Amino acid sequence: MALSLDYTCLMSGGPQGALGVDPEWLAAAAAAHPGQLQALQGRRASGELGFFDLPDDRQTVAAVSDWAASVKGRYDNVVVLGIGGSALGTSALHAALSPGFNEVSPDGDRPRLFVVDNVDPALVNGVLRVCDPERTLFNVISKSGSTAETMSQFLLFLDRLKAAVGDRWTDHVVVTTDAEHGFLRPFATTHGLTTFTVPANVGGRFSVLTPVGLVPGALLGWDLSALMDGAAAGRERCLSADFSANPAALIAATHHLLDTKRQMDVQVLFPYSHRLRLLGEWLVQLAAESLGKIDASGAGVGPLPHAAIGATDQHSQVQLFVEGPNNKVFTFLRVAEHDDVTIPAPPEGLEGLSYLGGQGFGTLLDAECRATRLALTAAGRPNAEITFPKVDAYHVGEWVLWMQIATAFGGECYGVNAFDQPGVEGGKIATYGLMGRKGFEDERARIEAMVMSDGQFVVG
Amino acid sequence: MALSLDYTCLMSGGPQGALGVDPEWLAAAAAAHPGQLQALQGRRASGELGFFDLPDDRQTVAAVSDWAASVKGRYDNVVVLGIGGSALGTSALHAALSPGFNEVSPDGDRPRLFVVDNVDPALVNGVLRVCDPERTLFNVISKSGSTAETMSQFLLFLDRLKAAVGDRWTDHVVVTTDAEHGFLRPFATTHGLTTFTVPANVGGRFSVLTPVGLVPGALLGWDLSALMDGAAAGRERCLSADFSANPAALIAATHHLLDTKRQMDVQVLFPYSHRLRLLGEWLVQLAAESLGKIDASGAGVGPLPHAAIGATDQHSQVQLFVEGPNNKVFTFLRVAEHDDVTIPAPPEGLEGLSYLGGQGFGTLLDAECRATRLALTAAGRPNAEITFPKVDAYHVGEWVLWMQIATAFGGECYGVNAFDQPGVEGGKIATYGLMGRKGFEDERARIEAMVMSDGQFVVG
Repeated sequence: MALSLDYTCLMSGGPQGALGVDPEWLAAAAAAHPGQLQALQGRRASGELGFFDLPDDRQTVAAVSDWAASVKGRYDNVVVLGIGGSALGTSALHAALSPGFNEVSPDGDRPRLFVVDNVDPALVNGVLRVCDPERTLFNVISKSGSTAETMSQFLLFLDRLKAAVGDRWTDHVVVTTDAEHGFLRPFATTHGLTTFTVPANVGGRFSVLTPVGLVPGALLGWDLSALMDGAAAGRERCLSADFSANPAALIAATHHLLDTKRQMDVQVLFPYSHRLRLLGEWLVQLAAESLGKIDASGAGVGPLPHAAIGATDQHSQVQLFVEGPNNKVFTFLRVAEHDDVTIPAPPEGLEGLSYLGGQGFGTLLDAECRATRLALTAAGRPNAEITFPKVDAYHVGEWVLWMQIATAFGGECYGVNAFDQPGVEGGKIATYGLMGRKGFEDERARIEAMVMSDGQFVVG
Repeated sequence: MALSLDYTCLMSGGPQGALGVDPEWLAAAAAAHPGQLQALQGRRASGELGFFDLPDDRQTVAAVSDWAASVKGRYDNVVVLGIGGSALGTSALHAALSPGFNEVSPDGDRPRLFVVDNVDPALVNGVLRVCDPERTLFNVISKSGSTAETMSQFLLFLDRLKAAVGDRWTDHVVVTTDAEHGFLRPFATTHGLTTFTVPANVGGRFSVLTPVGLVPGALLGWDLSALMDGAAAGRERCLSADFSANPAALIAATHHLLDTKRQMDVQVLFPYSHRLRLLGEWLVQLAAESLGKIDASGAGVGPLPHAAIGATDQHSQVQLFVEGPNNKVFTFLRVAEHDDVTIPAPPEGLEGLSYLGGQGFGTLLDAECRATRLALTAAGRPNAEITFPKVDAYHVGEWVLWMQIATAFGGECYGVNAFDQPGVEGGKIATYGLMGRKGFEDERARIEAMVMSDGQFVVG
């Protein structure tokens, strides 16, 4: 079984007549498809886009799995020190593939996971309070080996770890970084730390299937082979030369057309699934950093990826989605098969709830998904549905490749490079200046000369 | 100390010359302020808008606190059954006021909190696995007393609770609902359950300072008096007739002007604080359900509230924010005083990180906040900053009232009723139809006749 995509309600003149993609526009997109596919295949062949080949790298899966097996049962806590692409994929897959509330499994084999993706002292202090260093593994993840947030965390936890376990600290640290660059690689070599490599040609937001995600995944017992099998299957379909059979190309083209021709520039991912709830945050980074760019004409382009969760957001955002401006495109994620739980028949005094008794929670969730799609469709709001046969490693892996390749096609549609992030440099350099990093003295002077407020428009 | 608002960088022609609110537009908004204030005060005086008066209701605070004191230490787990307005405020305040990772406090006095705001079987099953009924209190919250998601959860947990503790189940359930309406009130009366009341004139998304949030808060040991004191202080300033001293009116007017005159219709809340990270989700509901409406001209209006978290989203969304379309308005939440933790000096081999060593994580977080504001300002993106002197119950309470009253003023600016949600009825009725509820047979027939797909635009 594979993911399926139904984009009927993205089209104009479909069964419900919603405002959407004109079939003629789609024909033009189909004509552009061979050229876009060739462009991506060319960059892949040149070695630039390593993410395409990750599903084949079973040697890394084996190496990570063997190492994880060798430390099985040794740790109650895995603490990931990472941010952005080093954190979001792991968090999303953890929610999907390690259901529950992050408890140690009764047999002690499955540790808890803490993804420390911020530098707030309240967060780092919290981790120190709940994780006994003796029972904790710190996985420090930075492709560049110099990320300020991750490095400052590493300095703290390294210090506390040495204080707690002395020379044995090297058994409690595993490093995931570039093969050559950055501060972490030589430090790990000096101390003989376990290390795994982020390939140089895989960017952070495309790295969840590298050791960035695989190391935590192996420790947590995810089925990494199924994850990679699903990813490989997803890649296969998303490289199809047949536009009408290529889900990534269809998603990219329809969304680009709705943005540029209908000014529908908000793209809402709406999973009706508790376990898939964090896929939206992963996708937000992937889409925002890849497509939020200045194009060749000098214009700022890129849709806004926005997350919702069903059924929860029916009680939060659906009012706006149904009645507000018609500038949003919805992608529902629907789960076909749940491990269902039956709603008991109501006791005496609650007979008014008898319509719920005897049905499954999964049935209710699915009815709500369908009801919300119907309401949006009736209000003329374009929406598509991706069906997961079930929530498991295979289908999550498939979805990862669908979205990564759709994003790559999106770069072709918008005429931007989907694989860089020039817009974040300014903030990084300003931070270095403000923190007094050597070599950034001019930046500091420039910042201190910038007046952000003259006090005129202040209340307080 | 109170919250402060600096909106310099929302204005056109400010120190950095960002594209923003023309001072003449703001003068017109100031002229409209007395009329808007009077309209809101009139609705308050008529008894329609109960949320204004909640900060004065110290009797309810005392009643809730007394009851919580009487059961102190009896439960390890508080499970909130609620969705939307019955869940989001409690979750946001829990993140802010109960820092850590949701563990039982060492003295056993502070329980864990589980907010069950979805009907996915994976979620409800997870709660059953980690919460021993003997040590668990279920707080079922539904103003209407008939919310399908909450009622189905209640049927399940009630059934399991009776199976586990027999007749003593009544000690493990507390009900928060309307004084008269719905299924829950008579059921609670029959069985002598502890109940608290949601006032009839307070809507779900305005209800966090009613027993909806106060009951979990009392059990978790939040300082409810300080929360209410802050809320009262926030209300005071936000009802000022002096437009230039009224933060709620200024926020509403500037955001409305940027939306309608500059097509900046995305409003990003950007807290630089781990503990304030869920305020965005609470605000999303408040703004989306209140302002996402059809106006008198028949047009769909309402900005898109969108959440980001600093510094985390510098590695996710900031690329789009800096270089993408200039259609977003940013509100930074900055914390002036942290319980800071010092970054240790780097060990041998990591000397390149010496710019971090000896400084606080809070200092780094604050530098990143400032750096990101500078980068956005330099890119011409309008942004404001609200400073929290510190994260505590007082200032969170103050912020709640700022945002609720700003939303009320927003309704006046857009010319919509901020206190209803007609757009969610369609989905509710469709769900009833699909679930086979008595009286909704025609709806079911209508839905089954609606063709959502003819199979032409399907891949899979």
